[in-house]
Amino acid sequence: MSEQRQTDAPETDESTSEKLVELAKRRGYFFQSSGAYGGVGGFYTFGPQGAALKGNVEDAWRDRFAVAEGNMEIDAPTIMPEPVFEASGHLDGFDDMLVECPDCGESHRADHVVEDNTEYEDAESLPIPEVEEVIAEYELVCPSCGAGLAGQAVEDFNLMFATNIGPGDSDPGYLRPETAQGIFVEFPRLKEYARNQLPFGVTQIGRAYRNEISPRRSIIRTREFTQAELEYFIDPEEDEPNLEAVEGVEVTLYPANEQNRDDGEEIRTTIGEAVEEGIISSPWVAYFLGVATPWYESIGVDMDRFRYRQHLSGERAHYAADCWDAESEIDGNWIELTGFAYRSDYDLSKHAEHSDDRFTIFKQYDEPKTVERATVDPDMSYLGPEFGGDAQAVVSELEALAARDRSAFEGESVEIELAGERREIPVEKTGFAVEEQTESGEHIVPHVVEPSFGVDRLVYTVLHHAYREDEVDGEERTYLDLDPAVAPTFVGVFPLQNDSALEAVADEIVDDLRNAGLSVTYDDSGNIGRRYRRQDEVGTPFCVTVDYETIEEREAQRASESASGDSPRAEETTVTVRERDTTDQKRLPVDDLAETLSAIRAGDLEFEGL
Amino acid sequence: MSEQRQTDAPETDESTSEKLVELAKRRGYFFQSSGAYGGVGGFYTFGPQGAALKGNVEDAWRDRFAVAEGNMEIDAPTIMPEPVFEASGHLDGFDDMLVECPDCGESHRADHVVEDNTEYEDAESLPIPEVEEVIAEYELVCPSCGAGLAGQAVEDFNLMFATNIGPGDSDPGYLRPETAQGIFVEFPRLKEYARNQLPFGVTQIGRAYRNEISPRRSIIRTREFTQAELEYFIDPEEDEPNLEAVEGVEVTLYPANEQNRDDGEEIRTTIGEAVEEGIISSPWVAYFLGVATPWYESIGVDMDRFRYRQHLSGERAHYAADCWDAESEIDGNWIELTGFAYRSDYDLSKHAEHSDDRFTIFKQYDEPKTVERATVDPDMSYLGPEFGGDAQAVVSELEALAARDRSAFEGESVEIELAGERREIPVEKTGFAVEEQTESGEHIVPHVVEPSFGVDRLVYTVLHHAYREDEVDGEERTYLDLDPAVAPTFVGVFPLQNDSALEAVADEIVDDLRNAGLSVTYDDSGNIGRRYRRQDEVGTPFCVTVDYETIEEREAQRASESASGDSPRAEETTVTVRERDTTDQKRLPVDDLAETLSAIRAGDLEFEGL
Repeated sequence: MSEQRQTDAPETDESTSEKLVELAKRRGYFFQSSGAYGGVGGFYTFGPQGAALKGNVEDAWRDRFAVAEGNMEIDAPTIMPEPVFEASGHLDGFDDMLVECPDCGESHRADHVVEDNTEYEDAESLPIPEVEEVIAEYELVCPSCGAGLAGQAVEDFNLMFATNIGPGDSDPGYLRPETAQGIFVEFPRLKEYARNQLPFGVTQIGRAYRNEISPRRSIIRTREFTQAELEYFIDPEEDEPNLEAVEGVEVTLYPANEQNRDDGEEIRTTIGEAVEEGIISSPWVAYFLGVATPWYESIGVDMDRFRYRQHLSGERAHYAADCWDAESEIDGNWIELTGFAYRSDYDLSKHAEHSDDRFTIFKQYDEPKTVERATVDPDMSYLGPEFGGDAQAVVSELEALAARDRSAFEGESVEIELAGERREIPVEKTGFAVEEQTESGEHIVPHVVEPSFGVDRLVYTVLHHAYREDEVDGEERTYLDLDPAVAPTFVGVFPLQNDSALEAVADEIVDDLRNAGLSVTYDDSGNIGRRYRRQDEVGTPFCVTVDYETIEEREAQRASESASGDSPRAEETTVTVRERDTTDQKRLPVDDLAETLSAIRAGDLEFEGL
Repeated sequence: MSEQRQTDAPETDESTSEKLVELAKRRGYFFQSSGAYGGVGGFYTFGPQGAALKGNVEDAWRDRFAVAEGNMEIDAPTIMPEPVFEASGHLDGFDDMLVECPDCGESHRADHVVEDNTEYEDAESLPIPEVEEVIAEYELVCPSCGAGLAGQAVEDFNLMFATNIGPGDSDPGYLRPETAQGIFVEFPRLKEYARNQLPFGVTQIGRAYRNEISPRRSIIRTREFTQAELEYFIDPEEDEPNLEAVEGVEVTLYPANEQNRDDGEEIRTTIGEAVEEGIISSPWVAYFLGVATPWYESIGVDMDRFRYRQHLSGERAHYAADCWDAESEIDGNWIELTGFAYRSDYDLSKHAEHSDDRFTIFKQYDEPKTVERATVDPDMSYLGPEFGGDAQAVVSELEALAARDRSAFEGESVEIELAGERREIPVEKTGFAVEEQTESGEHIVPHVVEPSFGVDRLVYTVLHHAYREDEVDGEERTYLDLDPAVAPTFVGVFPLQNDSALEAVADEIVDDLRNAGLSVTYDDSGNIGRRYRRQDEVGTPFCVTVDYETIEEREAQRASESASGDSPRAEETTVTVRERDTTDQKRLPVDDLAETLSAIRAGDLEFEGL
């Protein structure tokens, strides 16, 4: 396979990312897939630790954005038929700029070649001829082999993975480029589950696919990834978010106007103030920023390396009223974690246009409304003889005219166009009338507010922001300062040595802790120091070691218990508990261990004070 | 899109399935995807209830087969490069028999056409020419248009969904037909996470894809589905399963010899006896049947409509020593839920053959072994002048010969072949010697035991086995008797009417129950009877209704509390709690509600006895 070569953009400090990627492979967080066959660019496998961390992030997302917000979660296929993406516009416009090296044949993203080697920062927004000109002007070369790229055609490359459904090629299908389409296309059913009441939200966590020309930077830009998306459907005229619930949330914003200024800078404010001052124009977008901010913090994103950046007008889709990206800082670069977009009625209108289904909600008026409607009821005994086979066409013309311009019926006769010819009809033969009708409501196309999270990038950020190096006992140590809320393992349990007495107690402790709902790993391989280091690198907050003191204490305890009932209080059996970040060790009683560690995990107790 | 037409096999009683599919769409369990565009055969979307039920089944599987068994879970991409499936054999042999109608052009599975219209039961195992003969002999017709199919070619159709990775078509990729390959191909890394110790197990829950010619029977045979697979790697000479833990588990078995007998029947026995009597030949397969049986029951599979069927020798892959399918009965038909297979070293050996990576485990001997090795140490001052540029090739030949046939070195000279010519070399110039070497272990290819679960079919079975109809108050009622362990919702909470006092108390109860970790739905739309029916159809075990008695009681309680401290015990505030299956209603105190319902869910309390 090709695509193995790394074409990373130069970074101010690559070292943490490089070390993290190495640790991730060694400790089972993630690694490039199919390595036995040389690997394929843009496909990564989450190992045991990574799958657990990713699962914990997904669960935390589900708790916050589906359950707590009262939204519905669905699970749709990843392959969808062609008409879906004709409607969504992905078949037409979901392209990257491709340039092929005339010498080695390698494909590159033309905008990346430009950005990496010139002062252009947003080459993606340039038209293709201009990109070709820049390549020629700067004499840019192939990043793989160094051959000149000047004069090579830059082409649009569609990022959809295509396949065929069933035998033959009559039913093309595509892997969805976002989970959202699986929600939009089912709106006619989903609205029924919401009992036709706006607002309501639908979430989905699942795979999405983009056939990147040159995937880069490990799991940050891959060809297959996991999204967690919320599509929130609202009546734009009536529904308002519960801003009070989040108005005090503090956020770092980087608005478009600051980005456009030479000395522009990020703004520290609250959601409430940002809405009041018009910095965030959509209160719905502001609401979801307010909900999301404490959530990012809860899973371990370093909020000093986090901001919301507003899309510049050139970045934004024409239908999107306002867009903000949550971004995290990775080795000096900002990467997009989430897009928060006010998408108006674009998505539902597109599917309504392209399909026969109803992408509307019937909105009941508070009071039935009386409206005037102009109608016609033509005299067919006149039209028939007069127009023959065209009579029905004349009726349609008259109906359209009545709806469009009732003043046309004010004279003696009315003029219509029939097959390019103007014809006159006496008004009295049209049966024209203006009637009052009572309507109880109207069909409206809901607007969509979309927070769209990239799960792999969240996982990467959480790991990167948790990466630490220090020195312990004169030796360098690497550890992951993962929040217990997402750490794959909360406790490691070790027998000091391979000894059945130690192992028996360790087994009991493992069972106890698992029954208390804690995530536990057992390790009896290698010396204790090595086991601590292993759990440090995995990011396990606590380690419990069973040693010979434990065994002696337990024997003493048993002896004392079997002695006279009124003997003094039996000694306690203890184990060594070690905290990851400080490496502090304390001896704690085995009997209370599950309770103590659960309390620490819940935040009700601190290890330091024990 | 084509493929919409149902081509279901005739069933003895289709009605429950038909009614279930209708209920599933109406209540948000599942429905055919992209209905706005006419739908595509074999793709289904799980609605809010279905996604929750499926998630609960997956979580229950993870708890039992990953966590409790101490196995590692990973999460690999669904697109894999071509060499993976060249090695696995899927590109060559993963085919169904396709016959195309000469009139309407519709594609059909030839074996299904045969099975549905003749007495042949297992047409899939017939060779293609024989299927063509049967079609001609029985004058079988196109199930879509009725045109004759005699004389039409039957062809192998590969079931893999193909796509291209990156620009151009130089890197073909395929959607995995099973999650297993994502585990096998990463064995060289996974074994490191298991610290190179057998046995160990790796699980994965994820999407798999098969481009079925004619998908059928709703979510039972789809083109995109979810698998939960465990690949358990063992040393076939040393590792034994913990059979004692499951020997008492009772199972219904349908062994191959019973299937082959005219009056053959299912056998009721225990895992222990089945192994002892040789009915299940692989103790590892038996172990996993023993683990799985109570698990199926725990998620609500009706064990009277469940069995394990052994593969007939014709069904089994040549490398598979023993295979059993878990099957559930659906409207008189048996469908496969899980395959339990002893796959020997087939999968790892294939990847070892096709790649450069090591698919072995180094197995340490208990004691180092001394073995004799024949070696050569040729005299280059002789070989150099004699063979020139071929000298190194001669060395290789001599090394290979020494390893292969040390008797060749017994004479004065040794004969080798060099570029097709036979050449002689004096043995004294070869440095031939037989040496004793000490070896501490050997590289072995682990064997694989694979339980492979189809999650969608499990979901379908759980729903089908829970489908009930009865009569309540003279009206027909439909309900799902779902186990609380998997039911999407455990409690529905209703204010009797749209009244802010009732709604306030209902909101409080919702919060209370959610905080207790129960899954709750709130419903204030329609009359109470309709809301009960809705939750019955969703399968919600309990409904709680807040009525005016609740409000009066609460006011009385507050009044009594604010009166003198020594007043008699305040009245309790109560709500109506209704049980789904019996429709029994009881008034229970609001203050203990979360505790009471939690205890019922945990099985510590019965509603009946309250």
